[in-house]
Amino acid sequence: MYKVKNNTVGEFQLDARLAADCELVTDLGLCRLLLMNNASVPWFILVPKLEDAIELTSLPMSQQEQILQEINQVAAMVTSLYTPDKLNVGALGNVVCQLHIHVIGRFTHDLAWPNPVWGQLPDNRYQSKQLATALHQAASFLGTLQCIEKI
Amino acid sequence: MYKVKNNTVGEFQLDARLAADCELVTDLGLCRLLLMNNASVPWFILVPKLEDAIELTSLPMSQQEQILQEINQVAAMVTSLYTPDKLNVGALGNVVCQLHIHVIGRFTHDLAWPNPVWGQLPDNRYQSKQLATALHQAASFLGTLQCIEKI
Repeated sequence: MYKVKNNTVGEFQLDARLAADCELVTDLGLCRLLLMNNASVPWFILVPKLEDAIELTSLPMSQQEQILQEINQVAAMVTSLYTPDKLNVGALGNVVCQLHIHVIGRFTHDLAWPNPVWGQLPDNRYQSKQLATALHQAASFLGTLQCIEKI
Repeated sequence: MYKVKNNTVGEFQLDARLAADCELVTDLGLCRLLLMNNASVPWFILVPKLEDAIELTSLPMSQQEQILQEINQVAAMVTSLYTPDKLNVGALGNVVCQLHIHVIGRFTHDLAWPNPVWGQLPDNRYQSKQLATALHQAASFLGTLQCIEKI
């Protein structure tokens, strides 16, 4: 199995609200990858494992570029597994200030379309089997991708 | 005056809705920079001058990194001129599919806070003098920034 690098800097601690709303997919090189526990859309969240990070553009460019690489990995995974009509990628942080980047697969038939998903989706938690499958598929895809990139 | 590079690739044409809703600030290296004509928040939009671009993560990494550099320039400008409480950075494209990236200064007292701005703000066009000032200040800041980077 691919062993992820642990680039945690300082005392990284996942925000309590993100921890409550999301499930852990895997650790990427710099970011922890979460799945929002709402089955309405494939909604992934990258959280850079950096202490006190709030704004993406306040980070050194090398870290921003690493995050961009990982956004690309997650976008490839969402596109491959879910074939969405559109991707939404964004760093807002109005409610949870800890830096986190959303990568969301959107469908022209999803419940919030064409609005953004934030605050627009009913509570719709995954059933346990469905959640396990989603987490496994995402982690497997990313593990394979990282193995290929290392060859 | 700093002469912007024209990295237009293919037959770039600005989407009609973006053209109607926004004002031109300046051309950066790869992106055209627009100001959303809504005075409620400082809302800038970068549009890569690339034909048929839709998803950020579908572009070659060199172009994505160039866009990231330009997002940083715009973020520095918004932060310096408006001192917002938070930046919102995002590429959604659910309504206008032409690739465009929002960089928005948010305030805890703005009309949409803490929600995203999309679809949450009343029509609030700049008055002509106010618009001219906003465009001039933004373009001047970015021109100076690019001159410094070239030294």
